[in-house]
Amino acid sequence: MDNLDDSGRGMKRKKTIVWDDPQINKRDAVSSLSGLYYLRSIRDGKISPPPAAKLIGYQIKEVDHGFAAFELQPGEHHYNPFATVHGGILSTLLDTTMTAAVITTLPQHITCSTVEIKVNFIKPVSAESKLVRCEAKIIHIGRKLATVEGRIKGINDELYAHGVSTCLIFKVN
Amino acid sequence: MDNLDDSGRGMKRKKTIVWDDPQINKRDAVSSLSGLYYLRSIRDGKISPPPAAKLIGYQIKEVDHGFAAFELQPGEHHYNPFATVHGGILSTLLDTTMTAAVITTLPQHITCSTVEIKVNFIKPVSAESKLVRCEAKIIHIGRKLATVEGRIKGINDELYAHGVSTCLIFKVN
Amino acid sequence: MDNLDDSGRGMKRKKTIVWDDPQINKRDAVSSLSGLYYLRSIRDGKISPPPAAKLIGYQIKEVDHGFAAFELQPGEHHYNPFATVHGGILSTLLDTTMTAAVITTLPQHITCSTVEIKVNFIKPVSAESKLVRCEAKIIHIGRKLATVEGRIKGINDELYAHGVSTCLIFKVN
Amino acid sequence: MDNLDDSGRGMKRKKTIVWDDPQINKRDAVSSLSGLYYLRSIRDGKISPPPAAKLIGYQIKEVDHGFAAFELQPGEHHYNPFATVHGGILSTLLDTTMTAAVITTLPQHITCSTVEIKVNFIKPVSAESKLVRCEAKIIHIGRKLATVEGRIKGINDELYAHGVSTCLIFKVN
Repeated sequence: MDNLDDSGRGMKRKKTIVWDDPQINKRDAVSSLSGLYYLRSIRDGKISPPPAAKLIGYQIKEVDHGFAAFELQPGEHHYNPFATVHGGILSTLLDTTMTAAVITTLPQHITCSTVEIKVNFIKPVSAESKLVRCEAKIIHIGRKLATVEGRIKGINDELYAHGVSTCLIFKVN
Repeated sequence: MDNLDDSGRGMKRKKTIVWDDPQINKRDAVSSLSGLYYLRSIRDGKISPPPAAKLIGYQIKEVDHGFAAFELQPGEHHYNPFATVHGGILSTLLDTTMTAAVITTLPQHITCSTVEIKVNFIKPVSAESKLVRCEAKIIHIGRKLATVEGRIKGINDELYAHGVSTCLIFKVN
Repeated sequence: MDNLDDSGRGMKRKKTIVWDDPQINKRDAVSSLSGLYYLRSIRDGKISPPPAAKLIGYQIKEVDHGFAAFELQPGEHHYNPFATVHGGILSTLLDTTMTAAVITTLPQHITCSTVEIKVNFIKPVSAESKLVRCEAKIIHIGRKLATVEGRIKGINDELYAHGVSTCLIFKVN
Repeated sequence: MDNLDDSGRGMKRKKTIVWDDPQINKRDAVSSLSGLYYLRSIRDGKISPPPAAKLIGYQIKEVDHGFAAFELQPGEHHYNPFATVHGGILSTLLDTTMTAAVITTLPQHITCSTVEIKVNFIKPVSAESKLVRCEAKIIHIGRKLATVEGRIKGINDELYAHGVSTCLIFKVN
């Protein structure tokens, strides 16, 4: 992030996002041996994360069968008009982590998408909140549908937001 | 957006986000004569939108008492691993528009924040979807709480997502 | 409803619920020519409503393609500890009406069940509220899933509760 | 439950609900030394449960600070047209248990009501399901709002439904 003087209205801020061709992300996702393998390959830096991960800035930290954890360093570029992180950024982090928790259990050529998500916002996040961590685990998974829950917490275990979502499981080629 | 050759893994993409000091956004928000006046000032380019609006790329198009409409040009930088717009981006657009619809009715020094949001995803959005428009209107507003609903539609009126949220109304100085 | 003296703790109240063999309800539901035909047959008194309708006391008033309206006379037997109608009774009325709105569009041997429901409670209902009416209409219906919204209002159009739900569509024999 | 012959359409079923004057329930609720004391008094049979508890048939089994467990014996009178327990009955059980979990933490003259509830239905419940148990625990409680989650499980720990709700905390006299 750079600060640019714009004389009078304070310093302008700037951030550059770089991402890969999304068709490569898609090819990587579809060709992975399993959902867990795919997510671990991103975590280990073997394949690149999708553009939205670069735009928002979250990173996979842990994935296991039915479980995922992502982290985000909150920044000013995430702010709403009241100088705290926009709830939509937290929803995005929850959606990502909850979907990932479901994907960890799926074999190759099976994936899922979010049918609906519900998020409760408990406490504002700001750049001073340091790193926040979102953990999600599957509640129930059936043949067609899965439900999953997630929580965003800070370094001292304070709760910022929690969510639940319903995912549809389907074939992809 | 620029494309950079990274030899072999396709072209890298790049986008630079520029925003103002969020303390200026906050001062503008708090000092506005009313919520409606504040949102209209952003729409008319008199004051700058908050950083999240620059990061995600949505813009206010219309605001009236109990109603708001925002637009977003979907792009590749919004994509999840399956080369469609991440649901979290749509949740952010809905959250923004629904909160704005509530704010249109609030006097100076009264604002609201999202207690919880619930979003249903109906159809994937991609860069080929052209401009999408989110409209929100208040369902009910009381002294402490408001409920509001929103829908994201495309140019041909196809439905992409819909949501409902509960907002807490409070004083701010 | 009868009142019985129980000497000292006020009058005891009593209500007797009568219903039909649920296997008959099921046979009626499955053998109906269409969902709309089935619901109209209940509305017109040609076949009997399911036990839950008798227990809670709601009645079909109107059904059309993608739309349903049910009514409920709130009573003391619906009360929570604070002498207003239990939110669960309102959720049941919304769930019933929203599911019915989806069923109106389904042919014979296709039905739906509620995947998830979300209800906001706006204003308490009591026996003094007179008749309340719940109206629901489909938001979107696809091959596998439908979303639907509903509102409970009173005689003077005051809003008591509103909801949205996701239904799964499937074959039944 | 009695069965009555109605010649030809199978046996009619009958159930009689008996409850107390709801103003007594309200007086008991308001005058209790604390929320926990009030719920324990119902559990121990010292004061009577509200009418809705009698109508639906659920019973308090356990209450502790931030936690509640209720049980319900599913019966035919809870059935929807497909001869399984109506989702609204499960929503009522969840709403009751989740609200009770919040009430366990509140002092005299402070209570809460459900702002909104969200329920996912996982597996149908029928009379053959035997007793189902709903457990709820607080996720977060603040000065104005609390969030709470609950799950309905069977005897063998199978999951039937789960929910989350937001409650508003307020004074009552």
